[in-house]
Amino acid sequence: MSARILVVDDILPNVKLLEAKLMSEYYSVLTASNGFEAIEVAQAEDPDLILLDVMMPRMDGFEACKRLKADPKTAHIPVVMVTALDQPTDRVRGLEVGADDFLTKPANDLALFARVRSLVRVKMMIDELRLRDETCRELGFDGGYSDITDDMLTGRMLLVDDRVNAANAIAETVKKRLNIECEIVHNRDDALECIQSVTCDLVLINSGLESYDGLRLCSEVRSSPEARGAAIMLMVDHGDFKTISASLDLGANDYVMRPIDENELVARLRSQMRRLCYADRLRDNVHNSLKLAVTDPLTGLYNRRYAMPHLQAQIDKSETDGHDLAVALLDIDSFKAVNDTYGHAVGDEVLKEFAERIRQNLRGMDLSARIGGEEFLGVMPETDLQGAAVVAERLRATIAAKPFKITHAEKEFLDITVSIGLSCLSPGTNTPDALMQAADEALYRSKREGRNRVTLAPISSAA
Amino acid sequence: MSARILVVDDILPNVKLLEAKLMSEYYSVLTASNGFEAIEVAQAEDPDLILLDVMMPRMDGFEACKRLKADPKTAHIPVVMVTALDQPTDRVRGLEVGADDFLTKPANDLALFARVRSLVRVKMMIDELRLRDETCRELGFDGGYSDITDDMLTGRMLLVDDRVNAANAIAETVKKRLNIECEIVHNRDDALECIQSVTCDLVLINSGLESYDGLRLCSEVRSSPEARGAAIMLMVDHGDFKTISASLDLGANDYVMRPIDENELVARLRSQMRRLCYADRLRDNVHNSLKLAVTDPLTGLYNRRYAMPHLQAQIDKSETDGHDLAVALLDIDSFKAVNDTYGHAVGDEVLKEFAERIRQNLRGMDLSARIGGEEFLGVMPETDLQGAAVVAERLRATIAAKPFKITHAEKEFLDITVSIGLSCLSPGTNTPDALMQAADEALYRSKREGRNRVTLAPISSAA
Repeated sequence: MSARILVVDDILPNVKLLEAKLMSEYYSVLTASNGFEAIEVAQAEDPDLILLDVMMPRMDGFEACKRLKADPKTAHIPVVMVTALDQPTDRVRGLEVGADDFLTKPANDLALFARVRSLVRVKMMIDELRLRDETCRELGFDGGYSDITDDMLTGRMLLVDDRVNAANAIAETVKKRLNIECEIVHNRDDALECIQSVTCDLVLINSGLESYDGLRLCSEVRSSPEARGAAIMLMVDHGDFKTISASLDLGANDYVMRPIDENELVARLRSQMRRLCYADRLRDNVHNSLKLAVTDPLTGLYNRRYAMPHLQAQIDKSETDGHDLAVALLDIDSFKAVNDTYGHAVGDEVLKEFAERIRQNLRGMDLSARIGGEEFLGVMPETDLQGAAVVAERLRATIAAKPFKITHAEKEFLDITVSIGLSCLSPGTNTPDALMQAADEALYRSKREGRNRVTLAPISSAA
Repeated sequence: MSARILVVDDILPNVKLLEAKLMSEYYSVLTASNGFEAIEVAQAEDPDLILLDVMMPRMDGFEACKRLKADPKTAHIPVVMVTALDQPTDRVRGLEVGADDFLTKPANDLALFARVRSLVRVKMMIDELRLRDETCRELGFDGGYSDITDDMLTGRMLLVDDRVNAANAIAETVKKRLNIECEIVHNRDDALECIQSVTCDLVLINSGLESYDGLRLCSEVRSSPEARGAAIMLMVDHGDFKTISASLDLGANDYVMRPIDENELVARLRSQMRRLCYADRLRDNVHNSLKLAVTDPLTGLYNRRYAMPHLQAQIDKSETDGHDLAVALLDIDSFKAVNDTYGHAVGDEVLKEFAERIRQNLRGMDLSARIGGEEFLGVMPETDLQGAAVVAERLRATIAAKPFKITHAEKEFLDITVSIGLSCLSPGTNTPDALMQAADEALYRSKREGRNRVTLAPISSAA
């Protein structure tokens, strides 16, 4: 996949060398010769990847990376530090300021290009998610990416390693230093069984398993639908760039070389968790925004817009499966008097408490919605009229039995009652409109006959 | 990137050969020996790609592909036909039933693996989009993927070719047989300029340009932000699998071999357009669903949930830029009487028409929202109290001057008036609540002094 890559180095021949290598693989290259320029170009050009020298005058690579990651405009761009330093402490420092990887100068081509391909692939996905997030923000939802702190990074890790002592030591470290549960398995079959039975956020694989090809396992984990969202990391021998390159191309997200430096492992796991957390947040923003669209803000119940198509879907399902379906229409008695006497704030209190009591008296599979000012709807699948009558009567009694607590100078509790009308699916009554109308007529009879009661619609003779 | 690939062939040695090749590249392989089985496995296992033999007993590959593409559960899975046939007419037939490519047996490895990588990459993106779409459906929005018909496939194509006659012939074909505008350029610079100035849906590049490396141009187009959503296709010499493989790895979406068969070109362009259209729809579903969340269903204006954070954002912006900001609160006079006398249906008609007149009298940069039953809000950036008074007075006059058309047995038109209160940003009045309260008090004075008038909030002395 082609991409636009920003190369940052204060020494011109280094820039030229890297530029030539990247150009030969058909990448488009932007350049900058110091940290300040890097930040400027990144903001203006939105590159797909930044290769960042560490040792530069005025602002070093660590500082530049930190600033890039702190700016919402550039935080999503992957950064690879390219440096003459090669100590775990430097790598840890880079990872801690948000770098995605470290390459030692002169960069090994195999490792360089595999890493570039891998990061560009991840960025494509994040870009698609960010596009959604922009829509959310444009429409007034809070899509802002506030800082993800370390204590949010919780999850479960699967460690696949047949070296029992080494595995235990790693698990110990992970449990102690990260808020991550760790499960150890020793072979391929147990690994696949584990990811199929529980959700794993991280999978750390020893590439040198005695009994199975670590790369193949990496590929099998990556392509299993259950682990689609997981981060995969390989442990490889020092300098084994062939395995590193192959694993990244197969979709591994990162690697750590043996001998394993504990701090580096922790830093790498932490940055993978941070990336997962970011993607989850972008997804959640859309989901939560969509959820708002179908919810009544005051009571948290579904709104009319959601309830009507849902009722139609339940009718279709009940007819296909040959099941019953009952509908309850609920109207708070004399609600206008509550508003007029005690004000809208008290009216809202009553509506909220009323909704809460509905919620507690319906099953999880039932739908409850606020479909008008003081009018509510219950849809009960696999329930006939008699069954619905039992539920409705219990609900009516619950409302009437316990006065509603209100916040008002003159009164602490209000007596509230509800009138309910019930209808059920039958040959002549098999559309949302027909069911609603039958329930509405029954509700009207409840009102006319003195309120605080449940009335059943007559079952049509065709049934 | 690893992936799960379904290999379908009725001849076992063929299955085994392809399976071995794919396994050696670390792909996971599923198999089926006929069309029926292929459909079953595809439905149950949701593979990332299907390699489908054409000549099979009972149900051939064309029919199997057609059925896979007609089923919403499998329509998104890319299909490559693998066949001994190699005539343009067969390719066209395959493309027309929805196949993404054709490979001739025995498959050239270079072409096979590049195609597999390319299709798996595209599928990853579509999967992410489908995930969003499922959220929409789960929440009751219509996210269904109804069939995309050919007449929806409209757009613009850029043809980069220095062979003038051949280019003209292709453009002619595209214009005649597809609903696609075609622009021809002869070199790299013109091509890049074109994609930066207008949106292109398709970019067709001659890989053998005299003046520039076609692969590099392909890469430059792919990585330019303006062409992110475009489909890129290369024209290559017959059998030039090296260029085909390289271009697919760089992110080209398809290719066509010379001598160009007109029908094949049209079929390939059409399937690229169909894919773009599908992705657009998935994106639009989310956008439209989000839009519903912030819109008042009756009038189409923004709702209160959207208006309040928007007002806060406008206050922040105005304070930063040192600009004015005015707020108008509008309340339809004696609206309750309309509802009580003529019913809710007529009330709704009045609300709709009222919203329409607001819309016509505010600028595009102003926000208008329905924030209560008959209460509306206007937010006017870069407008002071006097400017807002001019707008509000014009709006008041527009409402009063022309009676509202209604649907009612006894009356055809209703006289409607509006009371308006205005406030503006000032040091003591710089929160949404304070602005709303000041406007509300002014509105109350409009009501008390006889309705059908505009009242300005007093400017606080601190200003």
